[in-house]
Amino acid sequence: MGPHPAVAAIRLAVRRVLHDVLTELTDRPRTPSGAFPCADPRTGAGTPPLVLVACSGGADSMALASALAFEAPKLGIRAGGITVDHGLQDGSDQRAAEVVIRMTALGLDPVESVAVRVGRDGGPEAAARDARYGALDEAADRLGAAAVLLGHTRDDQAETVLLGLARGSGIRSLSGMPEVSGGPGGPGRPGRGHRYRRPFLQVDRQTARKACMVQSLAVWDDPHNMDPAYTRSRLRHEGLPALEKALGKGVVEALARTAQLSRDDADALDAWAAEAEGGVRDEDGRLECAKLYALPPAVRRRVLRRAVVAAGSPAGSLFARHIEEVDRLITGWRGQGAINLPGRVEAQRQGGRLVIRQG
Amino acid sequence: MGPHPAVAAIRLAVRRVLHDVLTELTDRPRTPSGAFPCADPRTGAGTPPLVLVACSGGADSMALASALAFEAPKLGIRAGGITVDHGLQDGSDQRAAEVVIRMTALGLDPVESVAVRVGRDGGPEAAARDARYGALDEAADRLGAAAVLLGHTRDDQAETVLLGLARGSGIRSLSGMPEVSGGPGGPGRPGRGHRYRRPFLQVDRQTARKACMVQSLAVWDDPHNMDPAYTRSRLRHEGLPALEKALGKGVVEALARTAQLSRDDADALDAWAAEAEGGVRDEDGRLECAKLYALPPAVRRRVLRRAVVAAGSPAGSLFARHIEEVDRLITGWRGQGAINLPGRVEAQRQGGRLVIRQG
Repeated sequence: MGPHPAVAAIRLAVRRVLHDVLTELTDRPRTPSGAFPCADPRTGAGTPPLVLVACSGGADSMALASALAFEAPKLGIRAGGITVDHGLQDGSDQRAAEVVIRMTALGLDPVESVAVRVGRDGGPEAAARDARYGALDEAADRLGAAAVLLGHTRDDQAETVLLGLARGSGIRSLSGMPEVSGGPGGPGRPGRGHRYRRPFLQVDRQTARKACMVQSLAVWDDPHNMDPAYTRSRLRHEGLPALEKALGKGVVEALARTAQLSRDDADALDAWAAEAEGGVRDEDGRLECAKLYALPPAVRRRVLRRAVVAAGSPAGSLFARHIEEVDRLITGWRGQGAINLPGRVEAQRQGGRLVIRQG
Repeated sequence: MGPHPAVAAIRLAVRRVLHDVLTELTDRPRTPSGAFPCADPRTGAGTPPLVLVACSGGADSMALASALAFEAPKLGIRAGGITVDHGLQDGSDQRAAEVVIRMTALGLDPVESVAVRVGRDGGPEAAARDARYGALDEAADRLGAAAVLLGHTRDDQAETVLLGLARGSGIRSLSGMPEVSGGPGGPGRPGRGHRYRRPFLQVDRQTARKACMVQSLAVWDDPHNMDPAYTRSRLRHEGLPALEKALGKGVVEALARTAQLSRDDADALDAWAAEAEGGVRDEDGRLECAKLYALPPAVRRRVLRRAVVAAGSPAGSLFARHIEEVDRLITGWRGQGAINLPGRVEAQRQGGRLVIRQG
């Protein structure tokens, strides 16, 4: 008799991702089966790759930790775990210590608890997230991890799409969380572009919970998840259930699929805009209004956005309505004055050219 | 003292659309002010253009009818009204007769009630819609109308976006209702491509209600709008309010903006796919897998969709998952067999070519 279907589902999801991680580590020696040796039998050298799980002790990440502990050894991968102590509630350090014990009991090694200080920038959720990823990046660097697995489920993805929808800033904000994403990395720090992996984006929360239950894993219910002061929590406990009641049970899956399709669409249009940008500049590099006018609106707005960001406007402060106003210099020209944009950037039309610069 | 702000808002929205309609009727004689003459003063010939409003007697379309009756004469346009009797409730004929009286009282002329028989295809909402547009098309043809105005508000648009989101079939289904759309028209029936206009897509439902109230217009509450058996009604009375509670009051506006941005994005990607399609066929017109592979996923999936529809698959039955399966013949080739698609269409890979045909 095989494992419970929920356990089989989470293991399969993790196995797929571990295969992807191994495929990308092509510069390491392999055994004929494709697995990495725990040590090179001829030289004694060579360390097997390490994959970490970020674990809060909640059902999603405990399920992920259990699946990683089960699958990694079969592929010659070391499996470790990190829990982040956000220090936001009394006793959070004790809780982190308990999560360390639970991860160790699953056979993960190394296992660490990392305490962070959560700031205030961007609201409580964003500040906690920034602190968390900072700690995970530091731990992954220090331990030389090939990847860090995150327990976000299909339900989390659906919530993220709805949060993006509420911004009304276009399909990029509908594209949710990627299956693969980078750490801070950048040039000269190769390999980090694919650091974070989300094996459970196609797995629903109920399956993760069930997998913990049938494996008798103790899980922690994050009090924040039930706190209606948090937008995501309100969405989870009120908004999404009401949408499901109105639209049917397939809403979560539909939102998750929308994320993937929107991401691919946004990528394609960004690539188009990057290519189009060269063709709409004159010999002095200035944007020509007539050539901009000839582009499809979706591409033109992206070219304008790129130009405004390049001039120094912070991407996070630049909303669709800003770009629409700049676009009207092209499509609705009636002698408007200069347009003020975030980051003291100004856009104005002069002699058939669009001049975008920081004041 | 000018009109109440709500009345000013609905009149402005209608005035803008009437200007657009006039701008497109460039082949008719104009007075120097740009208005159409009610009759050519030199010859006595020439009929002023007619714009119809589709009016259910509800607040949205009664507000629209009142604004049309006010604005049209100032632009030399005749304003008429049509109400459709769907025959779905007892006394619907009496109600339609009452709407005719109310429209006549606003000064609309001609005014008509058209009875339709609602079928069953596609569910109650789709069947009622099909019958309604059939009747409106017939009336517009018969009366020679230049345009038919529809009272959909920004709230209707938000609901439409959420309904599209629930399908999970990509950004085209997020693009809601267009401001301008065609009737059945087609080649040889010019001018119908822009028959339907929605002046209120940027106007919220509350403004339309307020405008009726301050103008002392009696309005009818459609019992269907309150019937939770209808998906849209459930969304309006439960889903959207819960989303607003979770995400804030700006949700409706954000959804409406998402519609516009998604529409432009989908148009641009469709254009790209149409152009790319020529480049991925061999000299015999067959799709080459290697060339398809090189396209961005968003473009490739659209090229595949076009090819499957061209082979005879009904667009309405073709879901994202069908196209994903065909796409795996390109991106995940492991010797799969033929894939069955709606409309007895088969897709299979043969010798590096994709063969898509009706069985």
